[in-house]
Amino acid sequence: MSTVTSTSRSAPTPTDLGVGARLSLHPSGGVATVLADAYAAADASGVEVTADDVSTLVRGSEADVLRFVQQVVATGARLAGHAVAHVHLSRGCPGEVACELPDDAVLAWADAPELPATGLRATAQWALYPLDDGRPGHPGDHMRAIEQAVAVARTRATVSPERFVTRLDGDLADVLGAVAAGWLAAGRHVRHVVAHATVSVGSAPEG
Amino acid sequence: MSTVTSTSRSAPTPTDLGVGARLSLHPSGGVATVLADAYAAADASGVEVTADDVSTLVRGSEADVLRFVQQVVATGARLAGHAVAHVHLSRGCPGEVACELPDDAVLAWADAPELPATGLRATAQWALYPLDDGRPGHPGDHMRAIEQAVAVARTRATVSPERFVTRLDGDLADVLGAVAAGWLAAGRHVRHVVAHATVSVGSAPEG
Repeated sequence: MSTVTSTSRSAPTPTDLGVGARLSLHPSGGVATVLADAYAAADASGVEVTADDVSTLVRGSEADVLRFVQQVVATGARLAGHAVAHVHLSRGCPGEVACELPDDAVLAWADAPELPATGLRATAQWALYPLDDGRPGHPGDHMRAIEQAVAVARTRATVSPERFVTRLDGDLADVLGAVAAGWLAAGRHVRHVVAHATVSVGSAPEG
Repeated sequence: MSTVTSTSRSAPTPTDLGVGARLSLHPSGGVATVLADAYAAADASGVEVTADDVSTLVRGSEADVLRFVQQVVATGARLAGHAVAHVHLSRGCPGEVACELPDDAVLAWADAPELPATGLRATAQWALYPLDDGRPGHPGDHMRAIEQAVAVARTRATVSPERFVTRLDGDLADVLGAVAAGWLAAGRHVRHVVAHATVSVGSAPEG
């Protein structure tokens, strides 16, 4: 991860910048041992992993977080035959309700990670939220940031517009890579950027 | 639903205003018949329901959408003993990538629905995205809108701050009611407001 700030003090860490994910994994059949095995098999180097009763918080650099998330989801899908995951990626707001980053620690650029192909077909419904308030004389333009991110995603996965979300199809690596690339493209101009993706790996229909 | 616009033309419909939800339900055990039964048992009056291979799109007024979502999730949890749902509520941007509401159709106020108690304990991790670009001379303030929405949610459910999300505990009706009330409170000042909540009904842990 390359880090750029507008001051010469030491570079903020991913934790300073609020980088991380929340992951909830739903293997087909819902077997608890599948969940435990999927998390245990993933490479947790560089990430801090905290499970609670709703989701698992994963904190670290963008590349480490994405690698860990992909490995958990891939293993869960392989063990169960089908899995759905909800992936929530956040950066730029490390706190809880409060968002207390200093204004000069805005943009730490990170390149989108190159995730290894899995051989697993995936479909995601992805939404991106660039929380750009604008500044005096320069209103924000969250739809422009979203359009730019969708263009970036299109270089990695098959993209289709749907109501409220963008659909992504491809290898799990392409789909998660597209989500990450769009999130990080928006993060070059907006500090607080959140992505949500519901990712289905396998073929069981909803509803 | 009461509708206020700045012109005297006919009030925009919920579909004009892009009101709706995406719901993905994961009953413990993942049995397809549980999903089918949960959707079939819900009162679909006033809503348009479209399932795809990732989620189910529910469109209608805020009150009708929330009623339907609560009934599906409650039935799924009762039939399976435990369920997790991902609920994605959106308003103010009816299109797909493009967001083409006229500027004078911004704010259609809707009261937060009163959902009937279910007797089911629920926990949600909730995030709210008021996509407020600001306007010339008036930067947006998405964190203020979030803080106000959390204060509204606190009147309905037990609220705890967590990383990236706000935790809500209570009866499923209180939890979904808090999510809806916060979403609609933000919608009084911001046109495009999205809420995401991962809702666990029952007790099986993640991870």
